[in-house]
Amino acid sequence: MTPPQPRVTPQQPHKTQPRVTPQPHHTTPQTHLVPPLPALRGRRSAKWRSHPADVLPLPVAEMDFVLAEPVAQALREAVDRSDTGYAAPTRDLAHALRGYARRAWDWTVDPDHVRTVTDVGLGIVETLRRLVSPGDRVAVSPPVYEPFGWWIREVGAQPVDVPLATRPDGERRLDLSALEETFAAPGTVAYLLCNPHNPLGLVHTREELTTLAELADQYGVHVLSDEIHAPLTLPGAVFVPFLSVSEAARRRGFAFHSASKGWNLAGLKAATVVTADPAPKRYVDRFSPHSLFRTGHLGVLATVAAYEHGDAWLAEVVRALDHNRVLLGELLARHLPTVGYRPPDAGFLAWLDFRRVPGAAGRGDDPAGYLLETARVALTSGLGYGAEGRGFARLNFACAPDTLTEAVSRIAAAC
Amino acid sequence: MTPPQPRVTPQQPHKTQPRVTPQPHHTTPQTHLVPPLPALRGRRSAKWRSHPADVLPLPVAEMDFVLAEPVAQALREAVDRSDTGYAAPTRDLAHALRGYARRAWDWTVDPDHVRTVTDVGLGIVETLRRLVSPGDRVAVSPPVYEPFGWWIREVGAQPVDVPLATRPDGERRLDLSALEETFAAPGTVAYLLCNPHNPLGLVHTREELTTLAELADQYGVHVLSDEIHAPLTLPGAVFVPFLSVSEAARRRGFAFHSASKGWNLAGLKAATVVTADPAPKRYVDRFSPHSLFRTGHLGVLATVAAYEHGDAWLAEVVRALDHNRVLLGELLARHLPTVGYRPPDAGFLAWLDFRRVPGAAGRGDDPAGYLLETARVALTSGLGYGAEGRGFARLNFACAPDTLTEAVSRIAAAC
Repeated sequence: MTPPQPRVTPQQPHKTQPRVTPQPHHTTPQTHLVPPLPALRGRRSAKWRSHPADVLPLPVAEMDFVLAEPVAQALREAVDRSDTGYAAPTRDLAHALRGYARRAWDWTVDPDHVRTVTDVGLGIVETLRRLVSPGDRVAVSPPVYEPFGWWIREVGAQPVDVPLATRPDGERRLDLSALEETFAAPGTVAYLLCNPHNPLGLVHTREELTTLAELADQYGVHVLSDEIHAPLTLPGAVFVPFLSVSEAARRRGFAFHSASKGWNLAGLKAATVVTADPAPKRYVDRFSPHSLFRTGHLGVLATVAAYEHGDAWLAEVVRALDHNRVLLGELLARHLPTVGYRPPDAGFLAWLDFRRVPGAAGRGDDPAGYLLETARVALTSGLGYGAEGRGFARLNFACAPDTLTEAVSRIAAAC
Repeated sequence: MTPPQPRVTPQQPHKTQPRVTPQPHHTTPQTHLVPPLPALRGRRSAKWRSHPADVLPLPVAEMDFVLAEPVAQALREAVDRSDTGYAAPTRDLAHALRGYARRAWDWTVDPDHVRTVTDVGLGIVETLRRLVSPGDRVAVSPPVYEPFGWWIREVGAQPVDVPLATRPDGERRLDLSALEETFAAPGTVAYLLCNPHNPLGLVHTREELTTLAELADQYGVHVLSDEIHAPLTLPGAVFVPFLSVSEAARRRGFAFHSASKGWNLAGLKAATVVTADPAPKRYVDRFSPHSLFRTGHLGVLATVAAYEHGDAWLAEVVRALDHNRVLLGELLARHLPTVGYRPPDAGFLAWLDFRRVPGAAGRGDDPAGYLLETARVALTSGLGYGAEGRGFARLNFACAPDTLTEAVSRIAAAC
């Protein structure tokens, strides 16, 4: 049997939505959201316990902002009730996601197609376990969230790199023609979509996702869409849930949602796998009956509070991030003009290109390693993102504007 | 190659520690530990959300007691700090376990041999993944915690039943000669030890565990010891950590610890895998680098508080459980004398034998199903525990004495 012929001509252009350049005057700092640095240093989470106190930590994807009050209240009430047993087998989380998805994205989620899991990572791993056989290939689009590769290898499959394409204007987008070639190749069973795309903060367009879904459907490839950053889509961009674009997307797709990024609840361990068609749902139905027990009970309570009562807080956070992405551009233009930076459309991660920076930071493969030593600023090394990440570092700007200013100042002094 | 010959003669008796019958006059109710029933019904956990309000829930292994104050305080402080990011890559939990294990069991844990995982179940599953190939056999001793079988099947292995032996006095213990036969059979790669043994609340003796370790070592079988109920060992019994008994145990053994049962933190998702020899440690070192991210951050903070400052509260809980196991015996003797019950040596679960109860509850295989309908008392069905569980039900007595009295009264009325 000959494999189907590629349908997308490699050079065929893809329309993307007009890019809105974030404007400084549209943004305002939301400084009341951020506790002072000494209070932050009292946190016990990974971001604040991985480096000595003289290091300004901007790596791990946690936000410095105070909790949304409805979330904090839900947690305090649970502690007051001594309510720390197992997550309950109810539909509360599914219904809360349904309500939020409808308000935020005009997307209808069927609660019967929502499965609760520990986190997005385990949800993807458990889905892949049921899709792949040892040696199967799973495509990814680097530079992309480092654990994608770990998760694929964890289930005995092989990651296949299909790097983001670079358009003539420097904009990076999904390389749909290269994806088609990979989908058509024997052994490719799935594609891990990062939607929005971490670490670049790309928001894929409806047209891109529609074409992706058609290709996946044509070649029988499953699409696993990590939509964890979706609630943090920033002004000027419109997040499109993968499962909303077409019947083909629903036939082939799994979406992974969590409040862990939007409301900073990564340590509470609750996420959902969403399907919208009986075929993918059948794989999720075969998850261990234990997957609910493995979910954080406080995570479920906090997530329900976030989805149901967290819109106002989230809007403030989005304003704060919008301000910071612009501020970061201004700071870099002033102090580090050779650092490449494209303000993200979603999330709080900046993908910084140090390759044209004169001196040691620019010469090495790993500016993050150099800057940790010399500037005492912790960024995430680009090296975890594959060959594409050499000379890059990822900066987390979910912090006070002052912290961001101090970080760039330290980096500039070290460059 | 001929398999090694069994060393344990099937009928060889095994000494066990003298059994201490719990005495009513030694126990006192700890009623201040239990919130009133309406407050408990406000909990959102599995125990309190799985049944309508007219059902008295005594199934899921959660305790009704109020949280230990040091644990509640750790959780409140974390919420006040908005400290809900990822669990930190520190040794805090390993050191806290080391301190607790030394005080409680005179057992020395090496923090370098402690791996943090989401919960005991995932720890066992991830360990088994690295030990077994599809079709391999993993032995269990039913009646035993129902998920043991699920976990084994989850990794593609086959559970092999080696039921607990019944001694002439009716006491049930590990069947070491049958285990030896199973270990000697081709394809048996591991044994899931439940230590203490749920649902019977058996505490295995040092001699039993030493023999078990020798057999495991002789036949090259790995022993995975679920020690989740160990902190709740009741007066008269002495818990023995499997890894403490011998070099053979350390060569072959993995121990799984958590504060989730002792301090009622099952929904916070933190546990540890402990090894004490380089050989088993090598398997644990191959866990996904993501296993820490999959752990609950609040679970780690609460567990550290429990291990470091939770002794006094735990002692009160042990007194409350000691009281309740005696009370349950008295209530059954008075109202349901045909129900078989052996007061457990550890934990808060009673394994009730309804097979000699006259009428419908005794006639069917599933007294829990019958009693839920007729008595509006929820117990755990024995049917999940294999053929051994027919006619049995598991009752959770980590509740107020009044609740226990009411439950037995309802059951008696329905029988």
